[in-house]
Amino acid sequence: MNAEDILPADPDTGLLSPVRAGTSAEAAVSDTAWVQAMLDAEAALARAQARIGTVPEHAARTITRVARADELDIRRLAVLSRETANPVVGLIRDFTGVVAAADPAAAPYVHFGSTSQDVLDTGAMLVASRSLGLLAGNLRRTADACGRLAGRHRDTAMPGRTLALHAVPTTFGLKAAGWYRTVLEAAERTEAVRAALPVSLGGAAGTLAGYLEKAGVAAGSEPPADYPDRLLTAFAAEAGLARPVLPWHALRAPVADLGSLLAHVTGVLGKIAVDVQVLVRTEVGEAAEPAVTGRGASSAMPQKRNPVLSTLIRSASLQVPALASVLTSCLLTEDERSGGAWHAEWQPLRECLRLAGGAAHTAVELTEGLTVDPGRMRSNLGLTGGQVVSERLAAHLAPVLGRAEAGRLLTGAAVRADREGVPFAEVLAGLPQLRALFGEQQITELLDPERYTGAARQLVDRALATAGEPDGPGGIRDTRTTDHADDSDQEGGLLP
Amino acid sequence: MNAEDILPADPDTGLLSPVRAGTSAEAAVSDTAWVQAMLDAEAALARAQARIGTVPEHAARTITRVARADELDIRRLAVLSRETANPVVGLIRDFTGVVAAADPAAAPYVHFGSTSQDVLDTGAMLVASRSLGLLAGNLRRTADACGRLAGRHRDTAMPGRTLALHAVPTTFGLKAAGWYRTVLEAAERTEAVRAALPVSLGGAAGTLAGYLEKAGVAAGSEPPADYPDRLLTAFAAEAGLARPVLPWHALRAPVADLGSLLAHVTGVLGKIAVDVQVLVRTEVGEAAEPAVTGRGASSAMPQKRNPVLSTLIRSASLQVPALASVLTSCLLTEDERSGGAWHAEWQPLRECLRLAGGAAHTAVELTEGLTVDPGRMRSNLGLTGGQVVSERLAAHLAPVLGRAEAGRLLTGAAVRADREGVPFAEVLAGLPQLRALFGEQQITELLDPERYTGAARQLVDRALATAGEPDGPGGIRDTRTTDHADDSDQEGGLLP
Amino acid sequence: MNAEDILPADPDTGLLSPVRAGTSAEAAVSDTAWVQAMLDAEAALARAQARIGTVPEHAARTITRVARADELDIRRLAVLSRETANPVVGLIRDFTGVVAAADPAAAPYVHFGSTSQDVLDTGAMLVASRSLGLLAGNLRRTADACGRLAGRHRDTAMPGRTLALHAVPTTFGLKAAGWYRTVLEAAERTEAVRAALPVSLGGAAGTLAGYLEKAGVAAGSEPPADYPDRLLTAFAAEAGLARPVLPWHALRAPVADLGSLLAHVTGVLGKIAVDVQVLVRTEVGEAAEPAVTGRGASSAMPQKRNPVLSTLIRSASLQVPALASVLTSCLLTEDERSGGAWHAEWQPLRECLRLAGGAAHTAVELTEGLTVDPGRMRSNLGLTGGQVVSERLAAHLAPVLGRAEAGRLLTGAAVRADREGVPFAEVLAGLPQLRALFGEQQITELLDPERYTGAARQLVDRALATAGEPDGPGGIRDTRTTDHADDSDQEGGLLP
Amino acid sequence: MNAEDILPADPDTGLLSPVRAGTSAEAAVSDTAWVQAMLDAEAALARAQARIGTVPEHAARTITRVARADELDIRRLAVLSRETANPVVGLIRDFTGVVAAADPAAAPYVHFGSTSQDVLDTGAMLVASRSLGLLAGNLRRTADACGRLAGRHRDTAMPGRTLALHAVPTTFGLKAAGWYRTVLEAAERTEAVRAALPVSLGGAAGTLAGYLEKAGVAAGSEPPADYPDRLLTAFAAEAGLARPVLPWHALRAPVADLGSLLAHVTGVLGKIAVDVQVLVRTEVGEAAEPAVTGRGASSAMPQKRNPVLSTLIRSASLQVPALASVLTSCLLTEDERSGGAWHAEWQPLRECLRLAGGAAHTAVELTEGLTVDPGRMRSNLGLTGGQVVSERLAAHLAPVLGRAEAGRLLTGAAVRADREGVPFAEVLAGLPQLRALFGEQQITELLDPERYTGAARQLVDRALATAGEPDGPGGIRDTRTTDHADDSDQEGGLLP
Repeated sequence: MNAEDILPADPDTGLLSPVRAGTSAEAAVSDTAWVQAMLDAEAALARAQARIGTVPEHAARTITRVARADELDIRRLAVLSRETANPVVGLIRDFTGVVAAADPAAAPYVHFGSTSQDVLDTGAMLVASRSLGLLAGNLRRTADACGRLAGRHRDTAMPGRTLALHAVPTTFGLKAAGWYRTVLEAAERTEAVRAALPVSLGGAAGTLAGYLEKAGVAAGSEPPADYPDRLLTAFAAEAGLARPVLPWHALRAPVADLGSLLAHVTGVLGKIAVDVQVLVRTEVGEAAEPAVTGRGASSAMPQKRNPVLSTLIRSASLQVPALASVLTSCLLTEDERSGGAWHAEWQPLRECLRLAGGAAHTAVELTEGLTVDPGRMRSNLGLTGGQVVSERLAAHLAPVLGRAEAGRLLTGAAVRADREGVPFAEVLAGLPQLRALFGEQQITELLDPERYTGAARQLVDRALATAGEPDGPGGIRDTRTTDHADDSDQEGGLLP
Repeated sequence: MNAEDILPADPDTGLLSPVRAGTSAEAAVSDTAWVQAMLDAEAALARAQARIGTVPEHAARTITRVARADELDIRRLAVLSRETANPVVGLIRDFTGVVAAADPAAAPYVHFGSTSQDVLDTGAMLVASRSLGLLAGNLRRTADACGRLAGRHRDTAMPGRTLALHAVPTTFGLKAAGWYRTVLEAAERTEAVRAALPVSLGGAAGTLAGYLEKAGVAAGSEPPADYPDRLLTAFAAEAGLARPVLPWHALRAPVADLGSLLAHVTGVLGKIAVDVQVLVRTEVGEAAEPAVTGRGASSAMPQKRNPVLSTLIRSASLQVPALASVLTSCLLTEDERSGGAWHAEWQPLRECLRLAGGAAHTAVELTEGLTVDPGRMRSNLGLTGGQVVSERLAAHLAPVLGRAEAGRLLTGAAVRADREGVPFAEVLAGLPQLRALFGEQQITELLDPERYTGAARQLVDRALATAGEPDGPGGIRDTRTTDHADDSDQEGGLLP
Repeated sequence: MNAEDILPADPDTGLLSPVRAGTSAEAAVSDTAWVQAMLDAEAALARAQARIGTVPEHAARTITRVARADELDIRRLAVLSRETANPVVGLIRDFTGVVAAADPAAAPYVHFGSTSQDVLDTGAMLVASRSLGLLAGNLRRTADACGRLAGRHRDTAMPGRTLALHAVPTTFGLKAAGWYRTVLEAAERTEAVRAALPVSLGGAAGTLAGYLEKAGVAAGSEPPADYPDRLLTAFAAEAGLARPVLPWHALRAPVADLGSLLAHVTGVLGKIAVDVQVLVRTEVGEAAEPAVTGRGASSAMPQKRNPVLSTLIRSASLQVPALASVLTSCLLTEDERSGGAWHAEWQPLRECLRLAGGAAHTAVELTEGLTVDPGRMRSNLGLTGGQVVSERLAAHLAPVLGRAEAGRLLTGAAVRADREGVPFAEVLAGLPQLRALFGEQQITELLDPERYTGAARQLVDRALATAGEPDGPGGIRDTRTTDHADDSDQEGGLLP
Repeated sequence: MNAEDILPADPDTGLLSPVRAGTSAEAAVSDTAWVQAMLDAEAALARAQARIGTVPEHAARTITRVARADELDIRRLAVLSRETANPVVGLIRDFTGVVAAADPAAAPYVHFGSTSQDVLDTGAMLVASRSLGLLAGNLRRTADACGRLAGRHRDTAMPGRTLALHAVPTTFGLKAAGWYRTVLEAAERTEAVRAALPVSLGGAAGTLAGYLEKAGVAAGSEPPADYPDRLLTAFAAEAGLARPVLPWHALRAPVADLGSLLAHVTGVLGKIAVDVQVLVRTEVGEAAEPAVTGRGASSAMPQKRNPVLSTLIRSASLQVPALASVLTSCLLTEDERSGGAWHAEWQPLRECLRLAGGAAHTAVELTEGLTVDPGRMRSNLGLTGGQVVSERLAAHLAPVLGRAEAGRLLTGAAVRADREGVPFAEVLAGLPQLRALFGEQQITELLDPERYTGAARQLVDRALATAGEPDGPGGIRDTRTTDHADDSDQEGGLLP
């Protein structure tokens, strides 16, 4: 394919992926961003080599100064990448031209001793680092919004739903507290993964031989034994990334880990989305997405205000697990560099980053503006005429009737109430077994859903307790009790 | 998000997906192509409604005439799609403006009675149809090239390899015949799926009510009972797609089927790629990718001519199965339109189409230019000193020694040859059990790998036999014997 | 690992997969079933070789007679398979012992000229054939039940729901008609895939050399040129499977196709399940799963009758797409037999078969016993006070006010009705723009949801029309109009 | 389905999954193990409730004593689980019977206030904990073996291979060091995930209401405010698991995290497997799997010693990423308990655990017994006649000729050597540009592959340096330099 044949093209400007279209998450992984990151990697390498005396400082300065994506024809690089199976070969050629135009003496120091994979992988880590920075910020904002919802609705009773049916009462505060903890934890994981993103420095087959040989030729003598170590340290410092123990050309955990993280993030956000989609159902009506003029409009139905934010988030959550599985699969990298498994990572990695980033961007809007209707929750709680607290009655009847008989009695009463359209309380009041135990007032009290929310309030308080602490951990795990094994030992199990 | 805030952006011009960068497969699914297809759907709808008298002909003509993607700001549509969770609401608004500018009287007939999903789904089917047309063409070219390789190398013996080791001899012709049949079948499947791609016509919730009401209002009377039928027929005809029995807004087989097809296509091409990657290994050297100046160059190693074509194809094959699983998962579409499962399809569908299309484009280059080295195949066949035909010897020894004893004898001889570095033939010649059976010349003949290629030639001939027939089927199934059950009945099984 | 070390074990009796536990779908793919199928393959091979004179008839008879899984220690075979990476080597050894015990003269003809993969693959196809037979039957029963639901509820109006909200009215008949067509098509696809399942016959590396050599040694002369052809035909006939053109050891479409089919099947059934789960929600209450004593019981809540059938089906639908993607990925099989990609197929294939089979088994129960509540559907239709037909009003207002203004007016009215708690009709009646057009009675009629079901009835009739025809096709495609291209040509597009 | 209809069945004893058949990894997740873990959860709950005074100690003792899986008919539980969509309802019923037989007074305290999900989820965590314990042990053994290989072959030169071709030399030590670090890290991750596995305690909808009500009824008064906290602490201690902040019935990170971990583990092991499969290829011959009599035997080819261990490991690695994606997808859990997404986790979780466990078991055998052939590595390094060090020559020529010209010259020489069959050194020696720079002896030295292994030795030493330290971290990240950001700040980038 000749450069002349390159069609002006707009393969993908976001039209089919509204969850990220136009967001900063999309811009952070654009082709321009990727080229810039690869140029940043080249510049960081030149500076690192200058630090330790291999490359002249002026050359490193020039390389750094002109390392700007807007100097290059990115579409051309994309198309020509077919000839070499990666875009770096063309990038180096064109970038060397740019450097040479600025300072011919600097040109030989571009990509000095390097290999395509060092540049592409380090660039990918820089792109990921910038994306995860944005992502973590949006996750923290989302967590904050969920935390506020949890606090505000600590005592807002609503139907707990399991397998699509009313189960027992819960509170919206407890639901939101779950969102809060898991999104907070997702933010913390994002920050932890971000902090560990390593530079890639291995040379042609991971031995650093090219770097050493170039350094030796330049110096006129073999580089000292600690040269590799110093080069690696300097490169990590200049790139602002972590330093690996070993070249990871064919040890792909850094990329696979990003996949796992981003599948986790979209899963956690998707949980909120599917919860919201239940709550906004016309028949349920317990919540509504933020009302923004024009948003959620339908092309056909004037009355609709579609839950578009949860829809967008869910659409991302349905895509990322599979894309992340591609990245995990690419751990099966043969040899010192795979002919295909490496190349299969790039686009799925970008897609995971922008889908998760777009979902988090959208989740901020959703959770900060979510409208909750406690009145509707209360009225929905009453829909079953008290059946939603039959577990409670069973607890009271079991000691008297036995658990099985208590269950049978209540199941029968529920069936009869439904079949005959009689209120559950009325059916119950007619049962001699109950009359023998409770007065009518007591039955009424026992059947009040708002009095059967268990430990919901304490759980919310507990979940929010760390909200004010700067490093309070997220997630459902109680990291204050990581010593559970010792704990068990100390207290001693009751029984062997 | 205001239209003013839209950043000029280049989210993806192909940089991270060289397998399709700059190919026609990429252009066929670009945002421009998608918008054009949706406009084509609108125009086909207007013409269909004109055919049956609901829309004035002049309006349909105007709508068709100005239905050009280059009239619209696609990036703007992409970004605004976040407000409505799909790009159609904005598209209709902007397109109606374009129509109004051309002829105000035509504007009310844009999207007449329609809904976003009808337009997006029909557009997707048009995009798919165009993509599959290109794909089928490239698959047929690839199949032809494989068929020629099979014919040319019908008798080129090479090591058959199983679990990475030499097993028994085979021929390169047989290997290429397998590629031929499976790629031919992939082409046929592509054409069959393409022919069945349906228009989408359901209206807001799949009842066509909007179309009927609009038609009724326009006519001043209720439309006749066969109106839906006529509308559907006319729309399919105008769009050049198949006619569905039912609206499929929430019955997503047409999209899921594309995923399955494209995973199949890239799997079949990926098989060729991984085979080629074994054959081009430095130690194997039995084949080489087409030598094109500059192609396969490394940024570090001057001697390398990397197998970039097989690398690109394999990179696609590693991605598509997971992406296709997203499409299959989206069959779980709740209600009359899912809030998320529909939206999750679009980008993976595009990605599958362009990865498969790019892989097929690349496979044409690979198979048309593949260089095969029969001499190296022959010398590799000799590497084990005849062990590669020990199965043959076992067949001769088993009747005399028993199968188990024959196996043990030959296994022992192989181990000894390897351990002591003695030729296998020499070890065998020293065994009394063999000397009792064969003369030295006979042993030499039995050990000749080229004489132990079984039915490879007949199989190649059989596989190629249908090549000249216009509708000869591909695949490994023998469609000439679909009556296998009857066959079994006719001849009668030997035993009950 | 020694045979003595084999632990008695029950790795999996179905505890974690209730969707298939105890069903015939599970039994059809059990280890016993698999061993039996591999023995059936051995027996069919012996009979085929007897048919064409290579194996003595008495040997084929004996081999067939004793080819019973209950003669073998399957757990032992499983454990010993670790030594050879497949269970066939051990199976042949143990089965040869069984044959030898019955007739020593028959023993040498076990696995005559064969290879592990021929036996395992043919066995897998036999297992698949039996499983798909059961599956197709259950799919047809499910389709029938859905067809009856569609017919019975042809005119049962209910809310059409899109993005979780009431959109416009539809009918339960139309929903069930969609289930009917897609499940019917799934049955047809199952039968088609089943009919094409091929035997596997290739010998050690796909050249049939071992079969030919054995035949030659047995006959004392080279087998005739058509021997491979005759062997293949006889084997397919004896096994009751299709005949392949080429050995497919490394051309894995037959297995990948099963994956795609089964993902399709569970997707189609999963669509029913997620629809049912919406309809049974406590707030919706439009349908209920069949009431069976004890079914759906909770361990805690006496009132619950959980929708367990849809839950089981959905659980299968969430697993199969990913499992099927493993099978598609395994198309990337290097060489004449892969060291791993072949082995990775077996368990996912089994899992797909039993999950789909279990889901279909469950779907029969669900659809045959589904309870529908037309009264609740009607009352839910009234929940929005007529907003659910605002599309209809828009159609009437657009010609007068313009489409945009009509939309704005109705959107405003809907917002006001919701905010102020005033009936939509009342808000509308207060609008001068409407009073100018319609009388109060006319507004009431226009707002009646049951009068706005569009072509739902015709669509149901059309979908059911083929029900009585023996070969009436399923799916949403109209196969009676496959000539759509010609159709377009004949009628002539309205416009170029 | 009646209990009487239960077929005796052996759905899966490992036949189709040799990677785990008969291993302790398989036994650890068997149905028996799962039932035992659920009974252990019940017993731990009873003891926890006894600790805090809700359940009589004698009852807790009895429940603990008879909580033995062998008391129950597991197949029956499996089959009956279809009625309630999970096996716990039946388990409680049958187990209560067992307890009642031992002590009728203890029976009411079984599953006291609890719900199915608490038992199944806690049971799953116990199963996971036991499995991960075994897994971590095998990963540490594998890492040790890899570390020994790395140390032993620190200076064993071999061809570095990229995109299937010889690139530049590397050492087997460096390859093994990569295996070592990544497997060690996988072990550490396994231990970390294991330590964080939480108990599940939420009651019917996650509010703990049932536990509180039962406690209140038993005590005759409302439990104190800290009761939930004390119950959770006691349960975690008795179960030996971590304590969650919130009930996680619908916050599924603990399960999704297991999926991500196990996909990582099999990916890391699969990398070793695909590397080994290249090295054992007949043409490469640089390594061999451990020779064990009978292992790797073929049913057809006496000479073969198949690389079965790497085959088994690879087969697992091809399955787990997709299975893990099911678990990640199930983070999309609607409401307080999903009707399907929860149920879809169980079997994939088991499958991931036993595939990863089996792979690790197999990797111990593979790495402890791997045979390496340094002589063959050396001779393979010579195959290209020195082209494998052309990068080195380029480093020397670039300063004189310019990088582009140096590359062209060497590429041309490589092409000529290949085409004309002349040694690369001879071609080079004939080039005036080289003769001007180097003497013949110098060319010979520069072309010696063993002198161009770069920093391989230092990297190996560095990778192994932490091997002796008890808590030396694995992975490719250098955790000793996590302060990279500060580092960057302290030293100051060379350039802004």
